[in-house]
Amino acid sequence: MSSVKAYAAQAADTPLAPFQLDRREPGPEDVQIDILYCGVCHSDLHTARNEWHNTLYPSVPGHEIVGRVTAVGSAVSKFKVGELAGVGCMVDSCGHCSSCHEGEEQYCENGFTGTYNGPVFGGENTYGGYSQRIVVKESFVLKISHNEKDLASVAPLLCAGITTYSPLRHWKVGPGMTVGIVGLGGLGHMGVKLAHAMGAHVVLFTTSPGKMEDAKRLGADEVVISKDAQQMAKQANRFDFILNTVAAPHDINGFLQLLKRDGTMTLVGVPEHPHPSPEVASLIFKRRSLAGSLIGGIAETQEMLDFCAEHGIGSDIEVIPMDYVNTAYERMLKSDVKYRFVIDMASLK
Amino acid sequence: MSSVKAYAAQAADTPLAPFQLDRREPGPEDVQIDILYCGVCHSDLHTARNEWHNTLYPSVPGHEIVGRVTAVGSAVSKFKVGELAGVGCMVDSCGHCSSCHEGEEQYCENGFTGTYNGPVFGGENTYGGYSQRIVVKESFVLKISHNEKDLASVAPLLCAGITTYSPLRHWKVGPGMTVGIVGLGGLGHMGVKLAHAMGAHVVLFTTSPGKMEDAKRLGADEVVISKDAQQMAKQANRFDFILNTVAAPHDINGFLQLLKRDGTMTLVGVPEHPHPSPEVASLIFKRRSLAGSLIGGIAETQEMLDFCAEHGIGSDIEVIPMDYVNTAYERMLKSDVKYRFVIDMASLK
Repeated sequence: MSSVKAYAAQAADTPLAPFQLDRREPGPEDVQIDILYCGVCHSDLHTARNEWHNTLYPSVPGHEIVGRVTAVGSAVSKFKVGELAGVGCMVDSCGHCSSCHEGEEQYCENGFTGTYNGPVFGGENTYGGYSQRIVVKESFVLKISHNEKDLASVAPLLCAGITTYSPLRHWKVGPGMTVGIVGLGGLGHMGVKLAHAMGAHVVLFTTSPGKMEDAKRLGADEVVISKDAQQMAKQANRFDFILNTVAAPHDINGFLQLLKRDGTMTLVGVPEHPHPSPEVASLIFKRRSLAGSLIGGIAETQEMLDFCAEHGIGSDIEVIPMDYVNTAYERMLKSDVKYRFVIDMASLK
Repeated sequence: MSSVKAYAAQAADTPLAPFQLDRREPGPEDVQIDILYCGVCHSDLHTARNEWHNTLYPSVPGHEIVGRVTAVGSAVSKFKVGELAGVGCMVDSCGHCSSCHEGEEQYCENGFTGTYNGPVFGGENTYGGYSQRIVVKESFVLKISHNEKDLASVAPLLCAGITTYSPLRHWKVGPGMTVGIVGLGGLGHMGVKLAHAMGAHVVLFTTSPGKMEDAKRLGADEVVISKDAQQMAKQANRFDFILNTVAAPHDINGFLQLLKRDGTMTLVGVPEHPHPSPEVASLIFKRRSLAGSLIGGIAETQEMLDFCAEHGIGSDIEVIPMDYVNTAYERMLKSDVKYRFVIDMASLK
């Protein structure tokens, strides 16, 4: 065991604070990573504050992890000491269900093991990336081929990046398609960058007129203020695909009506209270689909990282020290971040 | 013009009654059909009673029409006098939008012309199949290759048949797939027959234990009573595709959870009041889709009729005389029909 410094929530209503945890010695198949940066995802906040009513305490959040390999097990073949590596939302899965066989570990029928807060369907706790070190099975570790100087901006790709990349790929976004991205936050800004890099015509929907210029800088060809009924009406029947990153309950029907015949809108955020029920007629009269998508598999996460490295894509970030995380959570709740906080783990030493 | 006998609603709150209407002389591209049978669809009732708030009166419903060709225009090549022919929900569409070009006239971007109640997006009224004769553009007339003795049971294929066939084909139902059909009414009983004939393992969901035997006779491999939470729990994550034919508001989430990863549930009925909002988590955690589908294109309707003729498939029907239609409507509202009323148009003479 190695004892490492971390930050943990001890209860739903207390701030995160310094914590000491033990990491296992790397087994034959393990990769030990000294964490350099960890992104701050909204799920971290939900878990720290037990908003999903399933938190195991102490809770060490963080699943947008990048760092340097400092030890490898005897059976590890893909990683060497000194290389960069990443860890996303999962550190294990059953390995034998059909989803695992098809490289869709995020849909593991026996429940994958989250990087923090343990197996999805219950079991021993796991501690995430708000810590100096993590030890993970090689098959759940990702290779990083970005320039080392951009490393902090790579961290959010491990969750925000793959959560948007996977549905864009699954629904075959590419040149000649008109794609809507709803919301310009941590997920949405990645959706804009990725859909643009995939060659689609990208339209960003936001409620904030202040985000128009930024959206265009990030790669949006057009920006629509979704509160403006007139602007929205002009977009009807126009979209091949819409990636909706907004978790707050909202009128999803208003977006369904923007899809062409056979278009799909995919949701990636779970609202705390249900969205207003979509109108069935909106689905029937254009054979539209409303779908959902969860992060992405390990192979696809590697594909996304390679795609991003090739296209020079990282997240837009604000680097913070570890002890700023509670303030960062408060700012995140006010959408006061462009577009992802990333913790510099050197600040934990 | 030829003056023909018909039945019409003159207002939302009066019963259908005898009516005389004029049919045009067949133009060069027209087929004149003397109607032998016309199915009674729930849409007929909705329209006669102005329940969709768009009825043009007098209203002559009926869009499940089969009959004999009695005249053809000079440019007609596919039909000869004396042959059987069918007409479904549409008698025209714009012909130049992308949906029309792709043979999906039901999604015509300029609005197809309904067989009754005129163009979907407004315009002159059209009179449907509760009449002795209809004159329709050749490109919207279907060939019937069933045995003539089965003709009455063919009529409902023109709406109930294609409305279920089209989504089953679109979502590629076939051998090796487990398919759910929700509801055993006019649409549902066709869904069971068709999905069975396509080679799928078919599970019928009904709230009525009394329908179990009938469902199996029609082709269901299993029947699940959807009010029974225990039975429903056993079906979780099992279905590749679910065709939901129930228009009454109900818990669609209970059915979404029965889909496998990447499964789709398609709705074909528009509820008067919204279904309870589906849980977004049900979509996200298995990448499921909720979709809708509207009747089918003309080419696909012909394909469906040929498929049904080849597999000996017709609707289960109760043949009625024209003057029984108001009683039939009342019985339909109580689901007291197995599974479609078909009017014998000889009764109108």
